[in-house]
Amino acid sequence: MAARRLVVIGGDAAGMSAASQARRRDADLEIIVYERGEHVSYAACGMPYLVGGQVSGPERLIARRPEQFARQNIQVFTGHEVTAIDTEAREVTVAARGGDAFVQPYDELLIATGAREVFPEIPGRDAAGVFALRGLASGIAMWEFVNERAPQHAVVIGGGYIGLEVSEALRLRGIDTALVHRRAEVMSTLDPDMGVLATQALRDIGVTLHLNESPQALVQWEGHVSGVVLSKETLSAELVVFGTGARPVSELAARAGILLGAQGAIRVDETMRTAIPHVWAAGDCAETLDGVSGRPVWAPLGTVANKMGRVAGLNLTGGQATFPGVVGTAITKVGDTEIARTGLRERDCRELSIDHACTTIEDRTRAGYYPGATQITVKLCAEKGSGRLLGAQIVGGPGSGKRIDTVAACLTARLTVQDLVDMDLAYAPPFSPVWDPVQTAARVLLSAV
Amino acid sequence: MAARRLVVIGGDAAGMSAASQARRRDADLEIIVYERGEHVSYAACGMPYLVGGQVSGPERLIARRPEQFARQNIQVFTGHEVTAIDTEAREVTVAARGGDAFVQPYDELLIATGAREVFPEIPGRDAAGVFALRGLASGIAMWEFVNERAPQHAVVIGGGYIGLEVSEALRLRGIDTALVHRRAEVMSTLDPDMGVLATQALRDIGVTLHLNESPQALVQWEGHVSGVVLSKETLSAELVVFGTGARPVSELAARAGILLGAQGAIRVDETMRTAIPHVWAAGDCAETLDGVSGRPVWAPLGTVANKMGRVAGLNLTGGQATFPGVVGTAITKVGDTEIARTGLRERDCRELSIDHACTTIEDRTRAGYYPGATQITVKLCAEKGSGRLLGAQIVGGPGSGKRIDTVAACLTARLTVQDLVDMDLAYAPPFSPVWDPVQTAARVLLSAV
Repeated sequence: MAARRLVVIGGDAAGMSAASQARRRDADLEIIVYERGEHVSYAACGMPYLVGGQVSGPERLIARRPEQFARQNIQVFTGHEVTAIDTEAREVTVAARGGDAFVQPYDELLIATGAREVFPEIPGRDAAGVFALRGLASGIAMWEFVNERAPQHAVVIGGGYIGLEVSEALRLRGIDTALVHRRAEVMSTLDPDMGVLATQALRDIGVTLHLNESPQALVQWEGHVSGVVLSKETLSAELVVFGTGARPVSELAARAGILLGAQGAIRVDETMRTAIPHVWAAGDCAETLDGVSGRPVWAPLGTVANKMGRVAGLNLTGGQATFPGVVGTAITKVGDTEIARTGLRERDCRELSIDHACTTIEDRTRAGYYPGATQITVKLCAEKGSGRLLGAQIVGGPGSGKRIDTVAACLTARLTVQDLVDMDLAYAPPFSPVWDPVQTAARVLLSAV
Repeated sequence: MAARRLVVIGGDAAGMSAASQARRRDADLEIIVYERGEHVSYAACGMPYLVGGQVSGPERLIARRPEQFARQNIQVFTGHEVTAIDTEAREVTVAARGGDAFVQPYDELLIATGAREVFPEIPGRDAAGVFALRGLASGIAMWEFVNERAPQHAVVIGGGYIGLEVSEALRLRGIDTALVHRRAEVMSTLDPDMGVLATQALRDIGVTLHLNESPQALVQWEGHVSGVVLSKETLSAELVVFGTGARPVSELAARAGILLGAQGAIRVDETMRTAIPHVWAAGDCAETLDGVSGRPVWAPLGTVANKMGRVAGLNLTGGQATFPGVVGTAITKVGDTEIARTGLRERDCRELSIDHACTTIEDRTRAGYYPGATQITVKLCAEKGSGRLLGAQIVGGPGSGKRIDTVAACLTARLTVQDLVDMDLAYAPPFSPVWDPVQTAARVLLSAV
């Protein structure tokens, strides 16, 4: 009997995690990975820090190269785009760059095509000097542009994670940076009252903010971008970066008749199976479950992609693993300000018609008398009646952000506000006030639930 | 009807938390606090940092003064020692410093007498220059001694939390510091393999270690300590600090016929009631429950004392609060090395005859390519079969220690190793590798449970 063959479409976090896991469990499986781009297994989340200069070069972001996978007997083909899937015949059509298309049969297929950036439909987007961070090649291109062209003025469009991280990176490179965002405060993954603090953090590192604004067009000069037209003014910019959101790359799957789910991501169950036999999906192209709301959700994050890939790799080699989903945890920083969230925002609670209470407290990251104590703001939401914790948002100085993990654990276990008040969290003056700030928030919230 | 009267014995964390909570809930209650020492409501855990110079003066460690409590109509009497409790007559005998003893009736009595340092029985302990950190007066005395006498050589006896923190403090003051400890590695609250890392952290800040050693005697010269005699040598020292453990101050309660429990601490239920009506106990003098082993335990920590005090204050004013206990979380640091633990050690699992597995992993605190990533070692233990998490120990660079809270939350909720692997913890390169180190430990442990 010939060896079974696994074909993986997409060679980043989910695809390569799955391939490695599958190889570990099954030495005989033939494993072929087709990657449209030039790089596999890289740290996409590290690209802002490459641009910012904290990371010395792109090679540091590459976890493993195709030849390293080859030693594991995983065949990686970069520059190979899968253009069609035939789930009946169990084969994919592959277009090799500079070569002929060919058909590759599979026994098991993993779709790990990731996500792509969404751009607003404005003129001038194709000018030189216009970037989005999605795929390592785009990060390298932006890094080289900053190194070689030494732009003086940059405009970042979009105030989400990528917008904030790129803004910080550009400020670290000494570039005058303006950020354009369509709302009154950045980070719409936070409630507005917490988004205000993230907005202030951008001001603190010298980013000029243009809020409640959208770009109308990009101005070009000899093919290079030279400005961004807003409603009442034009901002000079030799560098423009879009961080205007992303969407799952699921068209290939959809064309093959594979069911899509939340926000157009490929529908999978908790084993990473799609609705079609022998077809799996994982990573930024696939949906998952939000454990707090119980709803399908699209959560395109590196950590989730790694987990999904691992579970897919276990199961498509006969394992029994499940990925139960996310609770909505994310973190970033702007300068010394750490920004983190998990679970439902106040806005989500309203939209889901959950009878809820939220409270926001200000505290210190360390004992007040200990050097380096800085401000931390914690917003905590819970269900009335049951007291079940629903979500948290944290903005504060060094040591603030990872406190979100305590709440993420509470959400996973469906603990209550009282459970958090009672919890035996670590205290010593260099680390926390006697009551950890998340517990102080819980104490205040107790009387409201 | 005359107002009911609450008498509190002991004016630190537990006693004053209870008094404040009781006042908030009952404006009419008469509240009297007797404190044997000179200070109430101070941050005992901050004393090493006063000695080390990170805290500018003792006043910064005092949260609230007696006159501030007076404004809340809480009467605080310092220099007043309760010498007897008559639980039948419901009255205490009080000896005022420099005054006559008197009898004070109570309706409710809270015993919050704290803990005291335990010293080895060796000659010379009463010499000038010999200290233990227990009570703010001792911290101030040691701080003044270091400021005024500028000792060149110090010996710290005992390698627990206080021993480590005082050693760091003395090194920060430029004092040659030797630490004497009876085992081969410090921090017996960790397993030996993790204690080794804490031991190395002491060496890294220049502390000279004398392990597997016990002091035989202290050498005096004109009433001042001048050395510590070990088995084969004598260490010069103008300053000697004992950090040789503590025990609950429960003799007063025992003499009154109040039942004692774990390690001689006063037995209380989860409402903070003792076995005798109208007598409550909280803080370092009282026992609590270990939620992982299910056994009574003595957990003399500021954070626990505050929680117990709050629950006592709620209940002795008619509330229905409970304190479910601890999971054994603690944290400290030596230089840049953070040391934390929660739950059961491998040694505890063996002693409790739990079928267990433990794993230890080395990882980085941040993405490997991000500046400032330092080493973190995580040891994780779980029950075989069920996979239930039992405990964790963490030693590592900045950002390591508070990760213990994630495991503490898991222990509280009785989650499994698989739950931790699946958990949605916060990831971004400045904060963590893609898999948080505690999850990496969990992934390795999975195959062993």
